Amino acid sequence: MAEKQEKNQALEEKTTFNIDKEKDFSNWFSEILKTAELADLRYNIKGFLVYQPWSVLCMEEMARLFEKALQRKGHKPYWFPVMIPEKNFHLEKEHVEGFAPEVFWVTETGDGSKLEEKFALRPTSETAFYQMFSLWIRSYKDLPFKTYQRANVFRYETRATRPFLRIREIHWIEGHCAFKSLEDSMKQVHEDMETTQELLHDAFGIPHIFFQRPQWDKFAGAVNTYAADALMPDGRMLQLPSTHCLGQNFSKPFNVKFVDENSQEQFAYLTCYGPAFDRIFAACIITHGDNKGLRFPFEISPLQVVIVPINFEKESKVLKKALELKERLLELNYRVEIDGSEKRPGEKFYFWEMKGVPLRIEIGPKELKAKELLVFRRDLEKKEKVKEKSLLEFVEKKGKEITKNLRETADKKFKDIILDAKTVEEAKKLLGEKKIVRASFCSTGLESAKCAEAIEKDLGAKVRGTRVDLKEKPFSNCLVCGKAAKEVVYIAFEY
Amino acid sequence: MAEKQEKNQALEEKTTFNIDKEKDFSNWFSEILKTAELADLRYNIKGFLVYQPWSVLCMEEMARLFEKALQRKGHKPYWFPVMIPEKNFHLEKEHVEGFAPEVFWVTETGDGSKLEEKFALRPTSETAFYQMFSLWIRSYKDLPFKTYQRANVFRYETRATRPFLRIREIHWIEGHCAFKSLEDSMKQVHEDMETTQELLHDAFGIPHIFFQRPQWDKFAGAVNTYAADALMPDGRMLQLPSTHCLGQNFSKPFNVKFVDENSQEQFAYLTCYGPAFDRIFAACIITHGDNKGLRFPFEISPLQVVIVPINFEKESKVLKKALELKERLLELNYRVEIDGSEKRPGEKFYFWEMKGVPLRIEIGPKELKAKELLVFRRDLEKKEKVKEKSLLEFVEKKGKEITKNLRETADKKFKDIILDAKTVEEAKKLLGEKKIVRASFCSTGLESAKCAEAIEKDLGAKVRGTRVDLKEKPFSNCLVCGKAAKEVVYIAFEY
Repeated sequence: MAEKQEKNQALEEKTTFNIDKEKDFSNWFSEILKTAELADLRYNIKGFLVYQPWSVLCMEEMARLFEKALQRKGHKPYWFPVMIPEKNFHLEKEHVEGFAPEVFWVTETGDGSKLEEKFALRPTSETAFYQMFSLWIRSYKDLPFKTYQRANVFRYETRATRPFLRIREIHWIEGHCAFKSLEDSMKQVHEDMETTQELLHDAFGIPHIFFQRPQWDKFAGAVNTYAADALMPDGRMLQLPSTHCLGQNFSKPFNVKFVDENSQEQFAYLTCYGPAFDRIFAACIITHGDNKGLRFPFEISPLQVVIVPINFEKESKVLKKALELKERLLELNYRVEIDGSEKRPGEKFYFWEMKGVPLRIEIGPKELKAKELLVFRRDLEKKEKVKEKSLLEFVEKKGKEITKNLRETADKKFKDIILDAKTVEEAKKLLGEKKIVRASFCSTGLESAKCAEAIEKDLGAKVRGTRVDLKEKPFSNCLVCGKAAKEVVYIAFEY
Repeated sequence: MAEKQEKNQALEEKTTFNIDKEKDFSNWFSEILKTAELADLRYNIKGFLVYQPWSVLCMEEMARLFEKALQRKGHKPYWFPVMIPEKNFHLEKEHVEGFAPEVFWVTETGDGSKLEEKFALRPTSETAFYQMFSLWIRSYKDLPFKTYQRANVFRYETRATRPFLRIREIHWIEGHCAFKSLEDSMKQVHEDMETTQELLHDAFGIPHIFFQRPQWDKFAGAVNTYAADALMPDGRMLQLPSTHCLGQNFSKPFNVKFVDENSQEQFAYLTCYGPAFDRIFAACIITHGDNKGLRFPFEISPLQVVIVPINFEKESKVLKKALELKERLLELNYRVEIDGSEKRPGEKFYFWEMKGVPLRIEIGPKELKAKELLVFRRDLEKKEKVKEKSLLEFVEKKGKEITKNLRETADKKFKDIILDAKTVEEAKKLLGEKKIVRASFCSTGLESAKCAEAIEKDLGAKVRGTRVDLKEKPFSNCLVCGKAAKEVVYIAFEY
């Protein structure tokens, strides 16, 4: 008996997750991947993951919400081939220089016959979409032409890979649009930033800042790049969706032309947008997770409600009631399961808390008699009695509260993390304290790339760019070269 | 004026689709792809399509319904890498022989550096899943282990490609499961056939027969293959989802073992299942399309309701009412759009009929005044007056009726198409009349492969196998060799 108890305790300890996320972040992240079964890293190609159900279910919900938003805003869905002929790449010079080093090439078929032409596994699909745009777009009446595809893209990362954060197969949506003017295309860039805000922040609770990237750090081939940076607990910034003003840089080599209102041929203005779910998922679990494991915003949680029957036997009334509650929740399209396993209730509690299920319903003979339920909220770690008849309203209301609470908690942490520095020394000190540095900078044009290189060399940190949401006035000279500053930039370590 | 009218007529004719589907099927199929903008064939890699919104939206709905069914039946979703190391392929001898000739190989990265090992673009993922199964499955308590992934797979088809029907990038779901006994695994095979019936037939209205394939025509590496064959109007059969009993053929080389109830190590019994949406979509439009264009079952139609305002001006009451109706339908999650373009009503009607939208709502000043609407059903080509206040109930009811009507119409055509032959001559005659031939056959074991080869050589047709839903008794000797027959098989041309 004692032996059995010991064994049970050992089991329980094994499923009890307890790592200090703030102090021991790196360990927290790698352990939660394993314990919650998010991804298996043992696949036999480096940098490629096997995504397990718990992450797939959440990322599918994220993608579904993005697709819904894009369709509502007039984007139409396409599926393009996974391969792009080598010659397409070479049409835009900066693009090929930026992406060619990272391409996986398909060169052979069957028993080793060489293909006449190499095909790239798409690292991104501008060079596939825009050759078709040139066939589809004829007149200003065809514009705006707004498309997207949900796809996997491939990058032969030469830097060290890290699960979800830097990997070689990325699961994303890429939006590609054509417009008749630069002004219209910039409206799209702003719409993309709003979409990001609505989903990343409002729905997934991930605070971030949109930066216009300096000229030396743009998407290869873009006129300007705008990227959402989220902040991780180790003080590093993580680039999330970015949107790019491509001007006519691609429409000229790919011949994307339209006849305008005055019967004149013009090159279209293009934009592209790319939310990657691997990174957004990572940002989500890192932002909301705590020392006991995962926490999910309600709408995107892989499982939203788990029902744990207490002191029940097969075909008992308790189990019947659990099934009845499950059916009622399923009818309203909640993702719900009963944990009817042989584990003890305590073990089940720890397990589902570690997995981050937002609501747990406990029901035993006592609750059955009183026609009420015990409901545990993962975010607050609090139990509440709920009348059985008001369960559905309760779940709906608490679902919204949970998402709001996680978002507000994350927003609070994000404040007071940005501090000003006037010298490289000050910047260094602040970065050491896991802060983001705000600093005056000579400019964000190519002429200032040297100052950014000095920051990278001396501090290991990167100049993220200028804020999109605020026009900020320099408050000192450039912190690197000491010359008059034109811009206020943000400096941080990055993933 | 006359000139303008002529121009309008020319335009109208251009958008009026009218091809005899039964008599001129091949032309019908290639023209509807272009006219309805289903896929663009001009992408510059042979055998690869650009899928346009109209097909993507339908295929996404199909995939969503399949995923929902699989999850309900206990399958968990995974995402596996698109690449599989060459050495994985070589573990199962028949599998590598079957698939190696069709593989695209990734051999280089970046500026042309050779990879140490070649990676296959997955043609199917048994050899990726089962190496992970060997890590995940430990005990009989882990079984059944039911998984799936939605993915794109790649086959370097050496036969002539044909849009949606035979292509080099396939969009599918692959289900992979492990069981403790052959019996359990055969139950899964039957569950897969039921899932196929529920979706392919009941929801998408595509009649089909499940055949157990002869031993010479199995999935490479399978013990037995069961495949759904649908019938196309040109008398050829199209293979749709197939499910495979793999026995221990893969669990042995991939070391997928479990400890049974008696603490003995056993190799698991595996099954796999593969609905490909490109082909299912093709079967759907071919089955239901008519001389005027597409027709879709209501639930999977890219657009379910189109509202055409008549005699309206900007900000008119008619347009306001159209917007109000759209909002009410959107709230119930219908896919609905208003066609507010400058085209004349007649043109719009032809266009949306060609596109196959199940319901069209017409509203003009007359309808507005009478508080009613004209609703056109694409499947019956009939208009009906509907009180505005009962529109939502009407749409729900008619939606179900449309799907039922299309399904029953297709079922009817499928009957009387199967006829018996006792000699090769009789079979030849029937095949010429676009029939499916039912015939007695010596056996479906490898020893009868010669008789099947004779059929293929003399008639160009293939032996599809024996029915799964009926046990049939031979009614003559083998139609080829004249020896005693053990089986009744079906013979048809195929895609």
